Amino acid sequence: MSENNSFYTSERIFEGAEKLLEIWFGPTSGSIPDISSEFDNNRPLRNGLRLVERDVWDEMLDIVKCQVLNVVHNDYFDAYLLSESSMFIYPHKIILKTCGTTTLLIAIHRLLEIASEYCQLNKVWRVFYSRKSFVFPEAQLGPHKDWNEEVKFLDQLLDNGAAYTVGKSNGDHCWFLWLNSPQNDILLTELESAHPLDETGSDFQDITIEILMTELSSETLNKFYHNPSEGESGTQGGARIDRKTGLCDIYPEAQLDSYLYEPCGYSANGLLRDNYFNIHVTPERNCSYASFETNIPVGHGTIADVIHKVIAIFKPEKFSVTVFKTREDNDNKKLLVVSVDDINGYSRKDRILYEFEDYDLIFAQFEREKNFA
Amino acid sequence: MSENNSFYTSERIFEGAEKLLEIWFGPTSGSIPDISSEFDNNRPLRNGLRLVERDVWDEMLDIVKCQVLNVVHNDYFDAYLLSESSMFIYPHKIILKTCGTTTLLIAIHRLLEIASEYCQLNKVWRVFYSRKSFVFPEAQLGPHKDWNEEVKFLDQLLDNGAAYTVGKSNGDHCWFLWLNSPQNDILLTELESAHPLDETGSDFQDITIEILMTELSSETLNKFYHNPSEGESGTQGGARIDRKTGLCDIYPEAQLDSYLYEPCGYSANGLLRDNYFNIHVTPERNCSYASFETNIPVGHGTIADVIHKVIAIFKPEKFSVTVFKTREDNDNKKLLVVSVDDINGYSRKDRILYEFEDYDLIFAQFEREKNFA
Repeated sequence: MSENNSFYTSERIFEGAEKLLEIWFGPTSGSIPDISSEFDNNRPLRNGLRLVERDVWDEMLDIVKCQVLNVVHNDYFDAYLLSESSMFIYPHKIILKTCGTTTLLIAIHRLLEIASEYCQLNKVWRVFYSRKSFVFPEAQLGPHKDWNEEVKFLDQLLDNGAAYTVGKSNGDHCWFLWLNSPQNDILLTELESAHPLDETGSDFQDITIEILMTELSSETLNKFYHNPSEGESGTQGGARIDRKTGLCDIYPEAQLDSYLYEPCGYSANGLLRDNYFNIHVTPERNCSYASFETNIPVGHGTIADVIHKVIAIFKPEKFSVTVFKTREDNDNKKLLVVSVDDINGYSRKDRILYEFEDYDLIFAQFEREKNFA
Repeated sequence: MSENNSFYTSERIFEGAEKLLEIWFGPTSGSIPDISSEFDNNRPLRNGLRLVERDVWDEMLDIVKCQVLNVVHNDYFDAYLLSESSMFIYPHKIILKTCGTTTLLIAIHRLLEIASEYCQLNKVWRVFYSRKSFVFPEAQLGPHKDWNEEVKFLDQLLDNGAAYTVGKSNGDHCWFLWLNSPQNDILLTELESAHPLDETGSDFQDITIEILMTELSSETLNKFYHNPSEGESGTQGGARIDRKTGLCDIYPEAQLDSYLYEPCGYSANGLLRDNYFNIHVTPERNCSYASFETNIPVGHGTIADVIHKVIAIFKPEKFSVTVFKTREDNDNKKLLVVSVDDINGYSRKDRILYEFEDYDLIFAQFEREKNFA
């Protein structure tokens, strides 16, 4: 999606599939940041990682090979729109998502240094790294050429990692995941005690929903090309696309920061209190791709609603859904499974449920039914 | 487990983990074999693949690099005990399981030729190929050095294959699976109509349970060494081990064909009407391994019973369980999940549920709890 180096010609090939890294830091006893602030909605604070200066992030993003296009803030976090996707900075958590041939993993070492050096965040609590299978793996750089190399890289840098190849490995919608198991449960206890039980009696919750779509309909693709007769590209063009496509209606109450690239391509960050979503579109016909990701909590029934809304906009031939969720009780699993039940017009090729230590993951892959073409 | 080339010294390294291939052939219209015979218990027939002469199988097994040690039969199938594991020949189905550095995949081409040439079985209906991650992958030959190579090999030979990496890929109990989706549902209809509904109203059922165990207890390992003062090795020794270990009590009503190797190692085939089980043990301390596999149907509750019985005999530090089962209804999934719930003395590291087209698969990995050491 980068204006700088990706869209030389309108039908250049581009690897839309993103690398997604999420790092949670634990509190350091006696250190400045107070982790409870992140979870108490009455005391949003610009502290921890949010205090790190912009030039420090810029220099870290140089390692990744991407640049900041725009930044918006709310009381809870900072949302960076990048030349290749998104970055969300919370006081004790960073989400960094980059596409194309960026070298995200190479920057982890510097990222941990920054957390330690500027915020005394020395304890890595949770790390998640995931991505879809690449369409052009040979174009990738460093460890990103091969999943096994990425796993080796992460295993050398971080403790207690578990790597999973989720879905059909000889298909085009395989999904890879590396996650650690936190060694120190004390951190979890601190987090939980800092986050009082909500009205339903459940405690600390975390969810990530991802919808990764390929072979979008031609009609959809056209909407993500810049047509100078309609107005400017950039953030103004992004806002126009939000309305034209209906993307602004997925979470109508959210603050949106969207961007239309030249000659085509689109990115958006959404902010909704302490939660985010992001959408990235690669509309080149020969490698079309769109992704939607959010950590906005939903009732179980509404996971399916979110999927339906997103699919209706992009009309892909194929898509995969992953829902990653902290385990609440045994019903959780059943509801997760049901949330990726039938999608009208699509047949489900795979459904896989993973039970990790504290999280459940459901993965499902869908393909358009022939008679709905 | 081979006497010929594997146990030069008592503590030689040996790859116990088996490659497991299962091929179901569909009926060829107008051909000699009648597939319904296989599923009608009142008409067991020595037909189809069971008519193939021994020297034809011997020559096919030469390609795999293993030999027949013993053969037993019942009305339904032939059970071959191999120098490296087991082979079961049904009229329209072959199960071939080989360990060590055997080259099982290389023989598929010949196997399909034999089915076509001798039995006019030209239609491959279902193929399953699976194995645990190897301890010594570099010792393997041909495509078996690397799972991706095995997948390429199978994809070139057979249509509609889906490959899965099940469980933690950077751990020691990863499990790989390749399976096809039958293109011709007519075959399924024929199979189902040939197999009348049983008393519970359910139709065609297929189940495979595998328990793959590593780091067996020292006490267990000693039982699988040949002690000349106790008697002979070979089939006589095998029968002695069956009683000494309690392995004969897992299915007391089964016909057992067991074998004790020199200086150590054990294999057994079990026959129970139209179903089989097999057990293979590599007792070398530095690479100890035992496997149990069966297609004997069980009530849902008793999957856990089977696991408990087997684990109690081998007392491994780590083991994985896979249960592969035709889907009956939605309760099937829940009961499969519950069947690998808690195992006393072990903590479950992973539990993964796959929903394939007609089958469900549950995978779980267990490790001994520290305080139960």
